[in-house]
Amino acid sequence: MTTRQLHLNAFLMNTGHHEASWRLPESDPYAHVELSHYVGLARIAERGTFDSLFLADGPQLWGNLAQRPAGALEPLTLLTALATATEHIGLIATASTSYNSPYNLARRFASLDIVSGGRAGWNIVTTAGAEAARNFGLDAEPAHAERYARAAEFLEVARKLWDSWEDDAIVADKAAGVWGDDRKIHPPRHQGTYFAVEGALNVPRTPQGYPLLVQAGSSEDGKAFAARYAEAVFTAQQTLADAQTFYADLKSRTRAAGRDPGHVKVLPGIVPVLGSTEAEARAAERLLEDHIVYEHGVGRLESLLQLPAGTLRLDGPLPADLPPESAIEGAKSRYTLVVELARRERLTVRQLVGRLGGGRGHLTFAGTPEQVADEIETWFTQGAADGFNIMPAVLPSGLEAFVEHVVPLLRARGLLRTGYGPRQTLRERYGLPRPANQYLTPDPDPAPALV
Amino acid sequence: MTTRQLHLNAFLMNTGHHEASWRLPESDPYAHVELSHYVGLARIAERGTFDSLFLADGPQLWGNLAQRPAGALEPLTLLTALATATEHIGLIATASTSYNSPYNLARRFASLDIVSGGRAGWNIVTTAGAEAARNFGLDAEPAHAERYARAAEFLEVARKLWDSWEDDAIVADKAAGVWGDDRKIHPPRHQGTYFAVEGALNVPRTPQGYPLLVQAGSSEDGKAFAARYAEAVFTAQQTLADAQTFYADLKSRTRAAGRDPGHVKVLPGIVPVLGSTEAEARAAERLLEDHIVYEHGVGRLESLLQLPAGTLRLDGPLPADLPPESAIEGAKSRYTLVVELARRERLTVRQLVGRLGGGRGHLTFAGTPEQVADEIETWFTQGAADGFNIMPAVLPSGLEAFVEHVVPLLRARGLLRTGYGPRQTLRERYGLPRPANQYLTPDPDPAPALV
Repeated sequence: MTTRQLHLNAFLMNTGHHEASWRLPESDPYAHVELSHYVGLARIAERGTFDSLFLADGPQLWGNLAQRPAGALEPLTLLTALATATEHIGLIATASTSYNSPYNLARRFASLDIVSGGRAGWNIVTTAGAEAARNFGLDAEPAHAERYARAAEFLEVARKLWDSWEDDAIVADKAAGVWGDDRKIHPPRHQGTYFAVEGALNVPRTPQGYPLLVQAGSSEDGKAFAARYAEAVFTAQQTLADAQTFYADLKSRTRAAGRDPGHVKVLPGIVPVLGSTEAEARAAERLLEDHIVYEHGVGRLESLLQLPAGTLRLDGPLPADLPPESAIEGAKSRYTLVVELARRERLTVRQLVGRLGGGRGHLTFAGTPEQVADEIETWFTQGAADGFNIMPAVLPSGLEAFVEHVVPLLRARGLLRTGYGPRQTLRERYGLPRPANQYLTPDPDPAPALV
Repeated sequence: MTTRQLHLNAFLMNTGHHEASWRLPESDPYAHVELSHYVGLARIAERGTFDSLFLADGPQLWGNLAQRPAGALEPLTLLTALATATEHIGLIATASTSYNSPYNLARRFASLDIVSGGRAGWNIVTTAGAEAARNFGLDAEPAHAERYARAAEFLEVARKLWDSWEDDAIVADKAAGVWGDDRKIHPPRHQGTYFAVEGALNVPRTPQGYPLLVQAGSSEDGKAFAARYAEAVFTAQQTLADAQTFYADLKSRTRAAGRDPGHVKVLPGIVPVLGSTEAEARAAERLLEDHIVYEHGVGRLESLLQLPAGTLRLDGPLPADLPPESAIEGAKSRYTLVVELARRERLTVRQLVGRLGGGRGHLTFAGTPEQVADEIETWFTQGAADGFNIMPAVLPSGLEAFVEHVVPLLRARGLLRTGYGPRQTLRERYGLPRPANQYLTPDPDPAPALV
């Protein structure tokens, strides 16, 4: 038994993370806009005592409708509905710092945090791609470094807004007719490069103070941002060695940024494909691969690699002369991960498309529940992970199988809680402190701290 | 019995519309951020078979915290939570066209419409006031006419986005591996004065097509906007005659704009204060007035009238030389309503503050359930209203009293439904059509219309 415990996050994505999952007989092709589908998933994850669930997002209609389910309920809307259908699980959504204003977004996360009793988390993204930019009046996406500079300022403003009410600003003195104490309200009066925000938020400080701050970019800019702000990091790592390098690097960057490295939890993604034998698991994996339309995958790969359409041949390798990551203005770390995966394993384009179809660059692991639990334990105990972002290939069945067959093993090994116990905030589940209010006047006669 | 039926909307605002309501012993001073408070209110309104409930909003912290409850949960977040706690009632929220982007806001309303099964409504506001502007990088609010020009373009873009998926764009052909039909996706490619929005929405077309479009501005710009776009109009009217004039004017403007005047429902606001006798009702009204802090009200009145602080004297009249509405860049129609109320009834500043404390310019009506039902029936049958915006002075008790004592009278008179019957969308409740898709290719061989 160890006292250090795994953190598990359920990454929910309509019929599953495998691009062909919607074609299976069991799958609901309208799942992406069915509240009941997501309520079912959230409740399964809560049965598995996951720390949190997560919804990715981008403010554009992705890709080609013919190929696979597109569109999604706006994630904070969906999480609010899930907040009322669950009791313990954390609720994390992606939202873009490039295409939102701090006042509106800070308020929406504060509102979700209140409605959920302190279970809100924000996966902070800068949003790559010209398609999104063109939905917001821009011709092209801002440069990568500029997106991150804006993100940093966005975070600073959001934290000022979340701190703009002291926790005890509401007095509620009915007899005197005094509702609140204006001296405990702190307008940000922010004048920066990207934002000017004058007034205090119109929501009181929330149970968590700030939502849990999550980040998933693994580029240089992304890692620097994570070291400064993130409390949980989602990352795609294909090998234990790569994951260990990433883990050590991020913890050391966090220390260098003056923060406790224990206050950044690293969660690699894993796509578990389960079978009661290894052969059964491999067969399940092949069944999914058989449903991939490879021509579609090649087009998406060309777009990711910024190659003209028609460049790649299905049974050939990637071109040798791809540009370096520094020349890419889009999703930098994903670009490198895909190129390295193809080169390391000498994959043909067809094989690469098959691999990406399963988890878009995340580690797919087909095996028995014991094998999956072993893999998780190894990464967790060998300095590669504080937990995992569980990305079932097929939903709901893959999540159900994980909760039914892998979770009991993790519990038996002392790696995962057996129940939620008393209600906790999402921060408390992740072992993170509630942030102090930056505006708080030190108490001239402080009582002893109760920590 | 009449076949024409009243439309009732419950305007929910923390502890009630009377500014002193929070000071009553029964009131919860934290109600503004308590989900359970709003769930309770929504369920009471649903017992009363209201068409809808409504949350007002502005993206700023209003006024002075000492005076009365300030801040609120972000309304679309709260409505999403209420959608899961109710089954029939419509869910209307204010959102600003000046401080949102069309892509994000259209998507959020589409998501609420889906999650609620077609019960979403949008009260379209342009947001007066420099405080809000300064939370979004501006020094001052844009001029009134410019705000409305932006609102009109915002609506055009939002409607393009809501129409960007045809209703049958999802094919879901698992065998062929074809999920959707790209020919049924219509990117707006909008290039306008205020917005450039290229791509289709990332949410399918919703049960209602568009959320119910509500408007509440009564200035010239506001009425022109309502005639063009609104399907329900909230309005503050102090007398039957004024309400009749407004009603006739709006219906005729709607006809002039080429729309069916029956497709704009006019709902004046009413603050019912109930008692089992008239004397009891007046006593309840006086109890509330006794809790007003008059000095606070004077400050707010000076701000509305754009007068320097300290200009008004509590026991004097309003100054004779107030500027005309055309000189006001803020909330124009509210300005005129307040000035006319004071002059018509020769009110002192103290009396005016007392009247505004009750419903901020809306009609306060204290009486027995019979008297309130009579007043409602008179306005409804005399060409002044298609229904009412019910604004209880104290919540939840005022809404409870209305549902328990006035609703049965309205039902007995055949003015209000006795139950919801089968599930309907909010548009269906208001007797409004589902909008046709502007991109829809006319069917070359149409079947007879089923209307």
